[in-house]
Amino acid sequence: VIAGNAELHLEELNDTHAADIAEVVDQMSLEAGKLLLHDLEDEKAADVLIELDEDLRAKILEDYSGLEIATELVDNLDSDDAADLINELSEERQREVLNSIEDPIQAKGLADLLIYPENTAGALMGTELVKVNHNWRVLQCVKEMRRQAEDIEHVHSVYVVDDANKLLGTLSLKKLLTTSTKTPIGEVFTKNAQSVEAMDDAEDVARAMEKYDLIVMPVVDSLNHLIGRITIDDVVDVIRDEAKEDYNFASGLVEDVESDDSVWTTTRARLPWLLIGLVGGLGAASVIGRFELELSHVPKMAFFIPLIAAMGGNVGVQSSAIIVQALASKSPMGSLLKRLFKELGVGLLNGLICSLIIVGASLFLGYETKLAITVAVALISVVVVAALIGTFVPLLLDKYKIDPALATGPFITTTNDILGLFIYFTIGSLLLGA
Amino acid sequence: VIAGNAELHLEELNDTHAADIAEVVDQMSLEAGKLLLHDLEDEKAADVLIELDEDLRAKILEDYSGLEIATELVDNLDSDDAADLINELSEERQREVLNSIEDPIQAKGLADLLIYPENTAGALMGTELVKVNHNWRVLQCVKEMRRQAEDIEHVHSVYVVDDANKLLGTLSLKKLLTTSTKTPIGEVFTKNAQSVEAMDDAEDVARAMEKYDLIVMPVVDSLNHLIGRITIDDVVDVIRDEAKEDYNFASGLVEDVESDDSVWTTTRARLPWLLIGLVGGLGAASVIGRFELELSHVPKMAFFIPLIAAMGGNVGVQSSAIIVQALASKSPMGSLLKRLFKELGVGLLNGLICSLIIVGASLFLGYETKLAITVAVALISVVVVAALIGTFVPLLLDKYKIDPALATGPFITTTNDILGLFIYFTIGSLLLGA
Repeated sequence: VIAGNAELHLEELNDTHAADIAEVVDQMSLEAGKLLLHDLEDEKAADVLIELDEDLRAKILEDYSGLEIATELVDNLDSDDAADLINELSEERQREVLNSIEDPIQAKGLADLLIYPENTAGALMGTELVKVNHNWRVLQCVKEMRRQAEDIEHVHSVYVVDDANKLLGTLSLKKLLTTSTKTPIGEVFTKNAQSVEAMDDAEDVARAMEKYDLIVMPVVDSLNHLIGRITIDDVVDVIRDEAKEDYNFASGLVEDVESDDSVWTTTRARLPWLLIGLVGGLGAASVIGRFELELSHVPKMAFFIPLIAAMGGNVGVQSSAIIVQALASKSPMGSLLKRLFKELGVGLLNGLICSLIIVGASLFLGYETKLAITVAVALISVVVVAALIGTFVPLLLDKYKIDPALATGPFITTTNDILGLFIYFTIGSLLLGA
Repeated sequence: VIAGNAELHLEELNDTHAADIAEVVDQMSLEAGKLLLHDLEDEKAADVLIELDEDLRAKILEDYSGLEIATELVDNLDSDDAADLINELSEERQREVLNSIEDPIQAKGLADLLIYPENTAGALMGTELVKVNHNWRVLQCVKEMRRQAEDIEHVHSVYVVDDANKLLGTLSLKKLLTTSTKTPIGEVFTKNAQSVEAMDDAEDVARAMEKYDLIVMPVVDSLNHLIGRITIDDVVDVIRDEAKEDYNFASGLVEDVESDDSVWTTTRARLPWLLIGLVGGLGAASVIGRFELELSHVPKMAFFIPLIAAMGGNVGVQSSAIIVQALASKSPMGSLLKRLFKELGVGLLNGLICSLIIVGASLFLGYETKLAITVAVALISVVVVAALIGTFVPLLLDKYKIDPALATGPFITTTNDILGLFIYFTIGSLLLGA
């Protein structure tokens, strides 16, 4: 990549999309990347920096003074990207950058954006937007839009506000194109635009934009004053991150792991779940230990330990995954009792089918009838209990405002392992009279 | 919900967003839902139908004749939604609807859209777009745009084509607003717009739109003729579906399950993975059976069966999840050998840490030193092997064009269970001299 890149003329690079340049920089050595960025036009360099991985960006920004960040980068970025970039700096550097911004209104605007906590609408929003007063006529609107559009890279939507800057609705480009220039805006705009408040949860914003097929969502304060807008590309990132987080939980990773992270970073992301598994394994060992006598009478009981443990784990993860997804999409859930009752039905049906198969297979493979029946009865019980636990735990976590996705992954597997084995050996000691 | 709804006046309903009405219809009885749709204006009813669940839509459409679908629904929908709706009908009904469409050009256009296979750019695209000729001047452009915009609900982007309808680039609203009306378009448009071909994979389209932060993506045929556009809201659905599918695989569900699906539907989605688990469990039983003699000499070996099985499974799922995500995001992966070598390092580090803990804990809990060492050595081996398998299998599946996400979920857990137990008992029979 680097060899091919050396041949590229700088002019061509400035015409290349920032996302493509960022991919190249990501593959280069840190020093080569810095040189490349240095050679680019300021605006392009700023765009490339935003596309880079956070760690790499931090390393590159070490070379920039507060003044350079303010004039070369912040001035060339949309306010939401600029705020994200500043947010990643140390508090001291943040103050340095904000003080180096010439335009006091811009500096104040950025400082305001920095206040919103992560994962809120405010943290996602940018302040660049085109707005018109509902008393204007179409012609004045077009003039005003021309003036405002000078400073804005993409015009997604035109907002209509009253004299107090309260959001009234949106003006479609189509209406603007097809209406006489003398028509007052008040007559042609679409009222009651969807909007979100700055402190709303980012995932709720994503869901609303998805539901209403919106490309840009206006953000208001608690008094309905228009203060910014969120574009769909930032929301797509929220959706991806959310999905990735759930997937990571389900597969036992506690933090985001890239395939090219170091051995140590990867280990750190994986070890917590493994330790839970370890503790669970010791717990299972102690459960089996309590039935050492039974086991010594019917050693073949040990054969089916993995089966019981695996089935309990699998069913538990399935049940909780269904609940986690339902909670995430805010689907109607019905009462807890009804849910558990239904899960009981699913568990019984699954358990029954699996048990019949296991009895048939065990007898075919030449295990004793008594052992086969023990395994079958234990299997139904374990599947039902695992289904109920898998349903109950994520709902419980959600009730106490803990991410229900935590319930999938090794956590529920481990619990069900221990419980399942206890059930298995208890039934075994009863049925086998061991 | 139904009670509150009865009080709504029809006029209010026609002003309500289709997505909100669809949620209400979803909660009503089928008959009540049909009545409600019947009372809505045709355009609103069409929009609501598109928002409904596919099963429910099919039931409601049974009452519509081909002619009604053509005039009341298809005419009021964007071409991509209309094509989706027609696609869900039987072939006979599809022909009926297409023959009932008055405008032969519209009918031809829809028939063309029906050809594209699912999960291609063509299946996602709509044909409504605004395009201008590069030889026109700004004034003529605005006039043409006004004319074209009459038939189009949202104008996302203005495409610039040559006389042969080949895509040249895009014209930004900003440029249009800020340029003199006499300027030729050829001088102000942005060249080399990103585009996709109709047969490109939908997930690749999603990745490209995400990467380049696009809101709308033009679709061309293999000769670069502009034939349609894909909007980001359809791509967001692709991203959600993709994430959901991976998540379902990882949690052992073979099809999409909603929390309000019937017991039987849910069982059907869950049973295949459980059967794999069952077969795996029987496999594990037969592995342990081969070491029955060793087990009868050192019955305490049975205590650690769940621990070994669980750790093998957890590590395998973690490793494969990292690969699955890297493959999905097309991150640079490096050579297979390098990857496996790195995974070996991660496995050794994780295995070593876990083994040290297990030795300490086992001795503390009063297990024999020999057994503790057996478990520890087996644990390192199992963790390393599981990490390698978890890395190798999804890469192998991907190479043979099988969805690598299949590798997560119970499949890899089961394989690792069996292999892990074999390693454990082999080491046990060597170290314990049993």
